[in-house]
Amino acid sequence: MLTISGIQLKNKMNTKPTKSDIESARKKIKPYIHHTPILKSDSINQILNTQLFFKCENFQKAGAFKMRGATNAILSLSKDELQNGVATHSSGNHAGALALAAQKLGVPSYIAMPNTAPKIKISAVKNYGGEITFCKPILADREKTLDEIIAKTAAAFIHPYDDYRIITGQATCAKEIYEELSNIDYLIAPVGGGGLLSGSILSTQYFSNSTKVIGAEPAGADDAFRSIRDNKIYPSINPKTIADGLLTSLSEKTFGIIKHGVNQIITVKEETIKAAMYLIWERMKIIIEPSSATVLAVVMENQKLFMNKRVALILSGGNISPLFNSNS
Amino acid sequence: MLTISGIQLKNKMNTKPTKSDIESARKKIKPYIHHTPILKSDSINQILNTQLFFKCENFQKAGAFKMRGATNAILSLSKDELQNGVATHSSGNHAGALALAAQKLGVPSYIAMPNTAPKIKISAVKNYGGEITFCKPILADREKTLDEIIAKTAAAFIHPYDDYRIITGQATCAKEIYEELSNIDYLIAPVGGGGLLSGSILSTQYFSNSTKVIGAEPAGADDAFRSIRDNKIYPSINPKTIADGLLTSLSEKTFGIIKHGVNQIITVKEETIKAAMYLIWERMKIIIEPSSATVLAVVMENQKLFMNKRVALILSGGNISPLFNSNS
Repeated sequence: MLTISGIQLKNKMNTKPTKSDIESARKKIKPYIHHTPILKSDSINQILNTQLFFKCENFQKAGAFKMRGATNAILSLSKDELQNGVATHSSGNHAGALALAAQKLGVPSYIAMPNTAPKIKISAVKNYGGEITFCKPILADREKTLDEIIAKTAAAFIHPYDDYRIITGQATCAKEIYEELSNIDYLIAPVGGGGLLSGSILSTQYFSNSTKVIGAEPAGADDAFRSIRDNKIYPSINPKTIADGLLTSLSEKTFGIIKHGVNQIITVKEETIKAAMYLIWERMKIIIEPSSATVLAVVMENQKLFMNKRVALILSGGNISPLFNSNS
Repeated sequence: MLTISGIQLKNKMNTKPTKSDIESARKKIKPYIHHTPILKSDSINQILNTQLFFKCENFQKAGAFKMRGATNAILSLSKDELQNGVATHSSGNHAGALALAAQKLGVPSYIAMPNTAPKIKISAVKNYGGEITFCKPILADREKTLDEIIAKTAAAFIHPYDDYRIITGQATCAKEIYEELSNIDYLIAPVGGGGLLSGSILSTQYFSNSTKVIGAEPAGADDAFRSIRDNKIYPSINPKTIADGLLTSLSEKTFGIIKHGVNQIITVKEETIKAAMYLIWERMKIIIEPSSATVLAVVMENQKLFMNKRVALILSGGNISPLFNSNS
């Protein structure tokens, strides 16, 4: 589990995001992000006897919903706080999103990246002008490297999810769903660190009457499921799943929101995640990463629960490496 | 080269499609097909210094533009002609499209399919209720099998492209582009048998003032390039390309339209086709099949020609098998 570094005291947002926080974030970040489409698939609906609405954050800038939180976090900083740029440690989509958001807003970004990070994510950060410092792929070294970066640059630390500004940004995704669709019975979002899930819960509480929010988690990385069940945060130790965006554990802030607002967290098998990913690729002709497929996997493994319901699914991202090395 | 069987005399449309033929086809097939979106990619535009508009027929029903021609052909038949269903021989997207169009219009379909056809296409035809007769993957056996099917069923033969009703249907794709966009400098379509390219040429002549139409062809299957250069139809002998939808040769009808209307046919290397496909997958997060990638490959290999131009590209289909067997 990621600990909260002292640098995060820079964070001025110390209370749970309100309805108006999310409304104002939605307006503030609008010029910097894509308004992603909500797609339907008649054939998948027919197979599963339900009515699914896919919110396509795989089409989001930098290829994932992370762009929402990163942009909102940077826009929430004062000129003074921003003057030395922003920093984070991440091997994944938060790194690319923060680098791109920083580039768009004209400030430098510094990323501590494990030397094992996927090439596609490393080159994304570089393309977006982020300055990478490589470190070992263990939390202690990531944090040490980040501390050194910040000591040198005085950049502002933006945590991937234990930050209400990030959670507020991610909440705009579900808000867009409720602007476009009504009478949604269930909203399903993947859960890793919980930024997207907790943001989705807040937007549901503020902008929808009756929607139940479900977290989708790989059985091989079920720390959030256990954390909610036992009412304490379990660290994510040695997770085993193809869903590389869902390896982290909940944090104080995300756990606090999720435990009060989630209907349930449902775990899914690896083979269902793969089958769901292939089904979306095949029937919808869109590329999603494995983490995104968990939401459809939940429906596939629980068809009775969702029969004839209106279900919104957040496809969290589309950054998948192996495809691009294929020779087929 | 596919020969024209006697059964095709059933075809009542013996003259080149007119403007009003295409307009009426557009209206007639509308309820049965998707109005596919035209997507843009800022990052690909930036890389290639041009302005590209991707017409996404990979999102078309049955996963390819072929649905347009197949639907138009079936709707053009009289009740008498339709009473015994439709038949074709095809290993590819025409088979799936004809089966689906027939299913939607409530008539049986009979497909002669080579026993080497990709599993994904065989199961598509089955899902759409098509009755498959397997044959050897050589033209003589395909035609013999088709003749036997027709002798038995008296179904109407719908050729994949040497048929003005098919060409008229494929023409509706470019028509939709011109309904949405103006001042297009170039339209690029892949060329295999030439149904899509010849239809695109007709719609350009009727609905656009100044657009030049370019055919995109793999260098390893360059029979159309040589046919236009030498003003005679070359058969496609032993083509070698990843673009499995572009293996066939031109026919009398498609050659007749293309030779008078094409600006040029540009051949592209296999490695550029693959690079173009990966670039679209990576940056646009949509799945296209290799044949579709040839159009972007043309731009990648000829950047000077397209610099700062407005270029419409037809992404012809999204049916690619190897992805769905992947374990990554």
